[in-house]
Formats: sequence, C-alpha cells, structure tokens
Amino acid sequence: MGKAEKKKGNQSFSFENPVKIVAGACVGGKMESEGPLGSFLDASDETDKFGGENWEDSESRMLKQTVETALKKAGVKGNEVEYIISGDLLGQMIASSFGIKALEIPMLGVYGACSTMGESLLLASVLIDGGFAECTVAATSSHFASAEKEFRFPLAYGTQRPPCTTWTVTGSGATVLKRAEASESGIFVTGATPGKIVDYGITDKMNMGACMSPAAASTIAAHLNDFGILPEHYDKIITGDLGEIGSEILVDLLKAKGYDITKQHMDCGLTIYDNQKQDVHSGGSGCGCAAVTLNGYILEQMRKDIWKRILFVPTGALLSTVSSNEGNTVPGIAHAVVLEKR
Amino acid sequence: MGKAEKKKGNQSFSFENPVKIVAGACVGGKMESEGPLGSFLDASDETDKFGGENWEDSESRMLKQTVETALKKAGVKGNEVEYIISGDLLGQMIASSFGIKALEIPMLGVYGACSTMGESLLLASVLIDGGFAECTVAATSSHFASAEKEFRFPLAYGTQRPPCTTWTVTGSGATVLKRAEASESGIFVTGATPGKIVDYGITDKMNMGACMSPAAASTIAAHLNDFGILPEHYDKIITGDLGEIGSEILVDLLKAKGYDITKQHMDCGLTIYDNQKQDVHSGGSGCGCAAVTLNGYILEQMRKDIWKRILFVPTGALLSTVSSNEGNTVPGIAHAVVLEKR
Repeated sequence: MGKAEKKKGNQSFSFENPVKIVAGACVGGKMESEGPLGSFLDASDETDKFGGENWEDSESRMLKQTVETALKKAGVKGNEVEYIISGDLLGQMIASSFGIKALEIPMLGVYGACSTMGESLLLASVLIDGGFAECTVAATSSHFASAEKEFRFPLAYGTQRPPCTTWTVTGSGATVLKRAEASESGIFVTGATPGKIVDYGITDKMNMGACMSPAAASTIAAHLNDFGILPEHYDKIITGDLGEIGSEILVDLLKAKGYDITKQHMDCGLTIYDNQKQDVHSGGSGCGCAAVTLNGYILEQMRKDIWKRILFVPTGALLSTVSSNEGNTVPGIAHAVVLEKR
Repeated sequence: MGKAEKKKGNQSFSFENPVKIVAGACVGGKMESEGPLGSFLDASDETDKFGGENWEDSESRMLKQTVETALKKAGVKGNEVEYIISGDLLGQMIASSFGIKALEIPMLGVYGACSTMGESLLLASVLIDGGFAECTVAATSSHFASAEKEFRFPLAYGTQRPPCTTWTVTGSGATVLKRAEASESGIFVTGATPGKIVDYGITDKMNMGACMSPAAASTIAAHLNDFGILPEHYDKIITGDLGEIGSEILVDLLKAKGYDITKQHMDCGLTIYDNQKQDVHSGGSGCGCAAVTLNGYILEQMRKDIWKRILFVPTGALLSTVSSNEGNTVPGIAHAVVLEKR
C-alpha cells in the first residue's frame, strides 16, 4: 500500500522512498549492562550517573552520549543532521531539552510516554520520505532514578512494588536515518501506523502493562487490517514494555480480534532483563526499554539476517502523578513502525 | 525554495502541495473573553472550568471542545481526520491525552512548551504535504490555573509576580488542515522552519520572554537566511509569547544579525490581553496564547485580506520546576510556520 493508494480512514502508511537506518546506538546503566542485552550496549555506566549532578542531568548526558555515538557509528557529523526528534518521560521533557541543546540540531519534541521511540522513528522517517530532510535522528531516553522521582517516591523511602510493576530502564537509544538509493541494501523503515489513545478504564498505575495492552492491540489490529496481512507476515511483532501481564492480555485481545500473534510476539520489557535473577517483577519499562532493545538487539538480529521483517510497536501509558492522584484512568497509546532488511 | 531544491544545512522547507487551513477554532476563559481578542473566540467559559472536576480536567475539556468546534466549522467529521497533533504544558501532557482520547483519532503528541502550536501546525502540514494524510488537525492548550499548579504555587498562596512575568492564557486553539487543489483559494501553510534549542544561560524563570527571545531570533534569522528574504517579505512576523521585555530583546538581537523587524513584528502575548487594564504585567503566555491568537485573530485578518503573508513563530521556554529548582538555565525554542492567503 503506497501513499498514493492510502485509503481514507486507514491509520497506516507506507514509505515510497527508501528510509535507511544508517546506524543505531544505545547506552544503558548498570542493571542493563548486566542483563541479557548487556553485550549489545554501545556504552554503559555502572554508577548510572553518566557524570551528572543529579538524575535528570544524568539522563540528559546519557541521551547526548547516545546521539553522539549513533552519529559516530553512522559517520555523520552533527551539522549534517537536519532534524532530531526526541522525547522522554520527565515533566516538560527536560531530559531531551537539556541533552540535545548542545548538539545545535533543529529539534522537534515528541511525547508518547514509553511509545516515544516509535513516534520519533515514525516522524523522523516521515520527514525523509516526504522530502523534508536527507538525514534525521530519532531518539529517546528514560532513567530509573529520574523516573522514580518523577512518578513515585524518593528512592530512599524504599517503597514496595507489587508483582505487576515493571522496572524503568536506565537507557537511551538513537537511530540515524538517511534517504537512500533504491539499489542500496540494509535495514529500512518502510511503513508506520500511528496509534489511537485507548482507555479501558484501568486506574492501577502499578499495572501499566494492563493499561497499555489495549492500545497495542488496537494499533496492531489496525496495521494488519490496513495492509490486509496476517501476523506471520512478520518475523517478529515486538511490543515495547507490556511485561508479563500486559503481553498475555495483548495476545488474548488480538485473538478476540481474529489475529493470533503467539508465535511472532516479543516484548522488549521481557527481553532487556532477566526477570527472575534481576528481580524486576513484570519486566522492563520506560522509553529506554524499547529504544535500547531496538538500537542494540533488534537491529543486530536484522543485520545478521535472523529477522528480515519486524513490526516494532512501542507502548506508552499516558498518565502523570497528577492524573493518577485525581483518580483518573491510565489511557495507553502504541505506535507501530515497519522495519525491513533487504 | 521547493523541497527538491532544499539545500543541506538549511533549517527550512517549503510545501509543494497546497496545505489548506480549512478552519480554525479557539476557546478561552473569562480573562481572554474580556480582552481585546474576546470577540474572536468561538466560545468561552466565565468560570474557566468548562465543566471540569479539576483544572487539568477543565483544560482537557476546553481542548476537546476546541477541536470539536474546529471540525464543525470545517464541516469535517472526526473519523475523516487521519491524525491529530497536539501537546500542552502539563507534566506528561495529560491535557492533550485526556482531551483527545474520546475523539478516537490517531494521535501524535508533541512538546515544544509554548511553541507547541507552531510544532503541531508544522507537523500536521508535513503529513499532508508528504502524502501521508488528506486531513489533519493541529491543536494545543494551556490553562492559567493548571499551569500555576504545575509550575508555581497553589493559587491560594497569592504568590507575588514580578513585572517581567507573563500570564498563562486559559485558551485552546485547533486548526483543521486539508490537502487542496492547486486552483483553490484560501489560507495555506506554505513553509516552515523548525527551531534549534537556544540557551543564553538565563536562569530567571520569572522572565521567560528573555529566555525565549534568543530562540526566536535564531529561528527567524535562519528562516530569512534560508529563503534569502527580508522581513518586509511578510506583512507580519508574529511571535508567540515574548511579552514586552522579550519582544524588545528579539528586535535588538535581530538588528545585530542584520534584520530589522520593527515594522513587521507583533507578539501574541502583547495582543491577547490589555496589559494595563488586565494587570497581566509583561503579557500573555502559554501554548494557548499563540493558539488562540492564530485561530481567532490572525486567521480572521487573513480572511479579510488585511494580511496576506505571515510568519508565525510561537516560542517556548524549555523548563520544568525540577530543572529550575536544580539551578538550571531556561533554554528556549521557536518554530516558524509560513501562512499565505491566495
């Protein structure tokens, strides 16, 4: 389904021009470096501080380091990047603002909670395919300590966490995209399905997997439906941070919609940590969860031709402490991006 | 400068396809309805509550009402809108998330602080010009009371405000965009310049005009330079919410760069209120400031052929209470959008 054929009412679109992933980079903290994806990190800091004066500063520095590493790997100078799309979980997105300002690259801030890597990748690709740029960067970050401070209680309180909670990943990912020639080989972003906000009325902010899975189901079903394909079209359908409980719900919800993704489904939140050994309860979460898994593990699997076609669906829970304290529900959103090796 | 001619290193781009503003709507609170732009509001609520249970809920309801009003004025049904781009000032952008979820339109959340109307308009136009959508909506909101709660102290404390402060607008704007035929007349989005984050090291969060003016100067200079034009190319160059002090600094900074915008410059923050009578100190601010002024006043001036060509440059201060409390500077950002009547 090319853009020209895009039907009214369809959520999805395909890219007509080759939007090539030139390089991806990811940086993580101590736990991430000790987890199953540790070897895929470009760098890590066992203090989780990245030289920062406070946790927000640490997250900003980690993000900046990630973007710089991605540019280096891509052989691209900062002034060759026309636009950077980035966002994070902190109030008013200060991790991105302070992380990116020194790079002096025109910046478009995005917010999709933990689905941000999907949104930034999607929009960075739109800018290239639409002819607005030759080279863009998609990025995002999260940090366990800055997220705990933003959303919960000071760490020193030692707040108890129920088993359905997930652990915010200290990590950042950045993807460098370029317009390529049709003859080039590599990994390409070939389509996307921006998501709707879906709210099943769940108010338990400790169970974000359950809050986000209806949004993931909505976006994946819309995607498969728009393109008239079945789950087996993809080697993997990879959600962001649904964790154990959310993943189960997603599979069930999609079965009810007529799609069985059991064989294809993978969740970054269940991939980035060893849930048992690392005691993270239901899995990893945060913008960094999908971002690190994509830019480290997933891209490497594609480079090795283990996976040729991926539907990458980061998931976000659209809450704040204010909305939760006011008794509000936790709506979810998920943006899908198609990655193809050729 | 068409996209095909876009030079590397240029921040700006032009749209090749006619991206038409089919309708704009704006809704405000009591003070906004009593100000100079009151007659341009589509609706207002003298309680500022919009039926909400709390100020965040009020802001969400105001935003939803604005989008619905814009769709009605455009004669467009919700399910005809392919993507809505929206953002706001609240932590994790709950005004947009909760305001838009019931509309069931695929949503891309953006954050540019008070520059958000520029960013949402820019990206909503990119999606149409790039062939990804036929119909999009750009929206944003701010609310005096929810912003005070987010950024300052409970209103009941009666905190004193220095003369350089601005007053957060209770208001929301939404613009409905459609791909048009080349032969159509009307108001079109014809180009844009996404901004860089600019930080002059100012830490006084009570003087946001000063913090944002360097970013506005950077974006406007880049825009004029990219297109090889002078300020007189435009009937008006309209910044978002620099207020009295920021506007003076902007004019000076641009003079130093060789551009005199004295005759063309207008600031939404100095337009939306009667600064003296309404006691708002340095002017209006917030995402709603530029959004209401655009969708009410500016579009109407263009409809009446009073202005034919506008550079709309909303400005944002990229701070949070956390970044300020940690002693950080207040970086600014400004995104420019070209509007033309033909």
